[in-house]
Amino acid sequence: MPERTWNVYLAGEIHSDWRERIESGVAAAGLPVAFSAPVTDHAASDDAGTGTLGEESEPFWRDHKGAGVNAIRTQTLIRDADVVIVRFGDKYRQWNAAFDAGFAAALGKPIVTLHDTDLDHALKEVDRAAQATARTAEQVVDVLRYVIRGELP
Amino acid sequence: MPERTWNVYLAGEIHSDWRERIESGVAAAGLPVAFSAPVTDHAASDDAGTGTLGEESEPFWRDHKGAGVNAIRTQTLIRDADVVIVRFGDKYRQWNAAFDAGFAAALGKPIVTLHDTDLDHALKEVDRAAQATARTAEQVVDVLRYVIRGELP
Amino acid sequence: MPERTWNVYLAGEIHSDWRERIESGVAAAGLPVAFSAPVTDHAASDDAGTGTLGEESEPFWRDHKGAGVNAIRTQTLIRDADVVIVRFGDKYRQWNAAFDAGFAAALGKPIVTLHDTDLDHALKEVDRAAQATARTAEQVVDVLRYVIRGELP
Amino acid sequence: MPERTWNVYLAGEIHSDWRERIESGVAAAGLPVAFSAPVTDHAASDDAGTGTLGEESEPFWRDHKGAGVNAIRTQTLIRDADVVIVRFGDKYRQWNAAFDAGFAAALGKPIVTLHDTDLDHALKEVDRAAQATARTAEQVVDVLRYVIRGELP
Amino acid sequence: MPERTWNVYLAGEIHSDWRERIESGVAAAGLPVAFSAPVTDHAASDDAGTGTLGEESEPFWRDHKGAGVNAIRTQTLIRDADVVIVRFGDKYRQWNAAFDAGFAAALGKPIVTLHDTDLDHALKEVDRAAQATARTAEQVVDVLRYVIRGELP
Amino acid sequence: MPERTWNVYLAGEIHSDWRERIESGVAAAGLPVAFSAPVTDHAASDDAGTGTLGEESEPFWRDHKGAGVNAIRTQTLIRDADVVIVRFGDKYRQWNAAFDAGFAAALGKPIVTLHDTDLDHALKEVDRAAQATARTAEQVVDVLRYVIRGELP
Amino acid sequence: MPERTWNVYLAGEIHSDWRERIESGVAAAGLPVAFSAPVTDHAASDDAGTGTLGEESEPFWRDHKGAGVNAIRTQTLIRDADVVIVRFGDKYRQWNAAFDAGFAAALGKPIVTLHDTDLDHALKEVDRAAQATARTAEQVVDVLRYVIRGELP
Amino acid sequence: MPERTWNVYLAGEIHSDWRERIESGVAAAGLPVAFSAPVTDHAASDDAGTGTLGEESEPFWRDHKGAGVNAIRTQTLIRDADVVIVRFGDKYRQWNAAFDAGFAAALGKPIVTLHDTDLDHALKEVDRAAQATARTAEQVVDVLRYVIRGELP
Repeated sequence: MPERTWNVYLAGEIHSDWRERIESGVAAAGLPVAFSAPVTDHAASDDAGTGTLGEESEPFWRDHKGAGVNAIRTQTLIRDADVVIVRFGDKYRQWNAAFDAGFAAALGKPIVTLHDTDLDHALKEVDRAAQATARTAEQVVDVLRYVIRGELP
Repeated sequence: MPERTWNVYLAGEIHSDWRERIESGVAAAGLPVAFSAPVTDHAASDDAGTGTLGEESEPFWRDHKGAGVNAIRTQTLIRDADVVIVRFGDKYRQWNAAFDAGFAAALGKPIVTLHDTDLDHALKEVDRAAQATARTAEQVVDVLRYVIRGELP
Repeated sequence: MPERTWNVYLAGEIHSDWRERIESGVAAAGLPVAFSAPVTDHAASDDAGTGTLGEESEPFWRDHKGAGVNAIRTQTLIRDADVVIVRFGDKYRQWNAAFDAGFAAALGKPIVTLHDTDLDHALKEVDRAAQATARTAEQVVDVLRYVIRGELP
Repeated sequence: MPERTWNVYLAGEIHSDWRERIESGVAAAGLPVAFSAPVTDHAASDDAGTGTLGEESEPFWRDHKGAGVNAIRTQTLIRDADVVIVRFGDKYRQWNAAFDAGFAAALGKPIVTLHDTDLDHALKEVDRAAQATARTAEQVVDVLRYVIRGELP
Repeated sequence: MPERTWNVYLAGEIHSDWRERIESGVAAAGLPVAFSAPVTDHAASDDAGTGTLGEESEPFWRDHKGAGVNAIRTQTLIRDADVVIVRFGDKYRQWNAAFDAGFAAALGKPIVTLHDTDLDHALKEVDRAAQATARTAEQVVDVLRYVIRGELP
Repeated sequence: MPERTWNVYLAGEIHSDWRERIESGVAAAGLPVAFSAPVTDHAASDDAGTGTLGEESEPFWRDHKGAGVNAIRTQTLIRDADVVIVRFGDKYRQWNAAFDAGFAAALGKPIVTLHDTDLDHALKEVDRAAQATARTAEQVVDVLRYVIRGELP
Repeated sequence: MPERTWNVYLAGEIHSDWRERIESGVAAAGLPVAFSAPVTDHAASDDAGTGTLGEESEPFWRDHKGAGVNAIRTQTLIRDADVVIVRFGDKYRQWNAAFDAGFAAALGKPIVTLHDTDLDHALKEVDRAAQATARTAEQVVDVLRYVIRGELP
Repeated sequence: MPERTWNVYLAGEIHSDWRERIESGVAAAGLPVAFSAPVTDHAASDDAGTGTLGEESEPFWRDHKGAGVNAIRTQTLIRDADVVIVRFGDKYRQWNAAFDAGFAAALGKPIVTLHDTDLDHALKEVDRAAQATARTAEQVVDVLRYVIRGELP
């Protein structure tokens, strides 16, 4: 019987190496995880609409067009995910991360949030909807190892 | 045949009078709308858990307890809503507003966002999931009047 | 025990008097029906976005904005409907009527189509998804009378 | 970990080579896409019912029988799809394309419409329910490449 | 606080007085029940399609047309029901009763079957999907009284 | 606009006065709540099947028959509830209380558990699925007052 | 890209060779179909409960026990199916076949019925919920070939 | 055509060898079953939260944190399961077993309970929601063999 593969979606911050740290930790642990994520190249993400479907003169519609194309990817992958990890960093407003968390919560997906303690109060609604709140990428790996293998660090 | 009542949930910012402006505009127009909202008294909202279920020594669990009690209200009312209006102001991170938008989107609820143009780029994913983006409370009233009565200003 | 009210949504053509004929027939029969419909004032419907949320320079986005506001109304009322009547007339392409039929079908709503025989071949997929195909507004009234009261003409 | 395969359903027009152009563009780009579509042989599609289940004397029931058999295919494949592309050409009424779009929208499937600008006003409701509107088959390939690989042309 | 009204759908046999016996028993007990049912006039039911939408020459399509119109009523009322009572008598094949039971079961509706013991073996799948199997209309009233009031006979 | 009525289901222990204390507290606070509950007369509940549908010789089937009739009531009322309160007392195994909590959780209903601290470890999975854990009936009233009115004690 | 496998559930009559005829026709046509079915050994099916879980003295509970075990199989496989074929023969009451059809219909599964014309009137509700009605096993093969390959006989 | 694999989740008691007995019986029978289960190492399960995400000073929140991490595993695997086996032993309160049964029931999953007769009365609601109640692990194997292969012991 082949082992079950867990689909894990990595939502949120795109300006630090947290995804790589989780992926390398999971690889080191040999866990059967298929990761997915939004497009993390900020410039490409901003051009997702105009780069594929043509220019727009109004910034609002330029963003709208790009967000539509990005949503094809993100909403499909979140619907496919077994677990959604949502990372909040210290820069930018990151409303799409909170939006993804709300979207996942309404679908009944288990959520793990990942952020520093200084964001705790601002993120209390999101953390409450999550099954776990981690402080480091390594803790997320530990949670995944336990969830998949039942092993503690 | 009695007229259909529309349930409209007013999510987001709690530090300006946008809810009152929408409610008074809707009342002036005589529209059959039943409004609902999160608890908008900031202090009460922060004490929702400890004020009802007892103190907590750790700030994280204090927030967690409060967010749980608030979620009973907010998620019930969002599930009940026909339309969800989500307001983003210029202060605070307002991740719960974006979370509510994601939650509503996954449930297939029509969303109207309400914010200034300087937030457009940061809110592009949320705006894309909305049916409309308004700049003023009065525009939201105009949208509701059209949606309910088919009348333009 | 008060009688059950049936919510009937009247989708499609907005350039003939079919809605009025169904409504007056139902009123004459004394049936407990609450009708709903898209905004049937063509000019208002086209201005739904720009008339409430401000002008747009590009025709595509003007339409997009209007269609978003109209969708708040139509999708809410279709979700609320017990029965969806979809009328196809002889003018215009009426893709929104077919879209509404598909939307209703996926939600498991009973559909009654209303159109002339010369459209039969072009509408075969839509008619197949419907529970009944009527040729006149009076037949729709007869169907509703039977469905609600069990009485034949 | 094997790469995720994306199921893409190609709905709508059957009288031009747009499906082939998308399929060859996707093949050239090496994207992991499994395409599906309605039966695109017009004569076979019209005979789907009588050719399998026996003749009918009435044209309406002939079409009804065929549409039932076609619906087994189309509704199954749309339910299976990750993304639904809907093409509107310049001939015929193509109500089934709009019906499929409505069906997909109610299921929460991401939609990409594909049509010329002269159909924009007539298709505004369908385009509003879509995540993207493309003008050429090549743009659809660009959208799929971005959605799947995060790469812009 | 007004008392909750229970919607009870009475499916199945139309050739005996079991519905009247349940309705009068429930009325005598003063229970807050709103009953619904298929059209129980056999001739009207058979003419539901042709009597409203015009004649058909083929018996199969005559039945098909009638069944479509009847389904608008029955499926709407079953979806609305809190409890579905399904009666099997000793005449006719009553496949529609078993179909309604399967439809209700897949929707998660509580089912009470009502039939004599000599049908037990043939109805074992349907009875297993039911919450209770009654032998008399009076037992159904007793079940409803208990369910609604908590009172035993 | 009439005030929203909140449906609150009171699951669990039937051997203490916790339901009365919540109901009188809610009445004193003037909150718009419609309470529902399983049948709390232990003897009647045990006889629910045999008292309505006839005796059984085997204890297993006697219980099975009764549990079926009780489930018509409990599952209907839980599906109708906005909030489910689940009480665990110090006697009996109360597996039906935990079952109801699991049932409510899978439906996405907000849950409030009510029990003493000495049950905390044994109930940790149930408490985690709840939005709040109360220690007294009065705390439940406080939670409901806050949820409905936004008022703290 | 490997070809899509279609899951086809064969419900109903267990006393003729219709399943074998469909399976051999599909094999001859080389169609990618995975068939499933209830247990078709009548004696084994009747003993499904007592043969696995121990004897019962009452015939009603003997059947109940068996139907429960059979339902684990049948409801799982119907939920998994892309298409449900339902065969009605000329013997027995076959209420489970009609129940399965209702169950599949409520889940939105495409249904093909298979029966002689003399059952048409009695099966009109079931046939109306189906996408196609076939008279021979060979016609079912023809429908599957068309649905999967788009080829007519 | 490769054989269908059945996903079977083994919920409940973690202090006896019932899982091993089912797994070895299924292996001996050569049945295509993929088993899953909660983490059955009691100490690890209690440390699931603090062992991965850091210590907690309050026992309630220590348990809460652990139950959140465990729920990521259990709720994902229950949602994936075709059949849920729920074992109740003679020690501990095992409320999580009953919670899992309620969760599975609301999702429409077939349930098999496994317990001694002395627990029958206390478990009557859970047993009623199950398709079968077994007394031994071997009976569960017999049920699975029948369900998958149609073979009786």
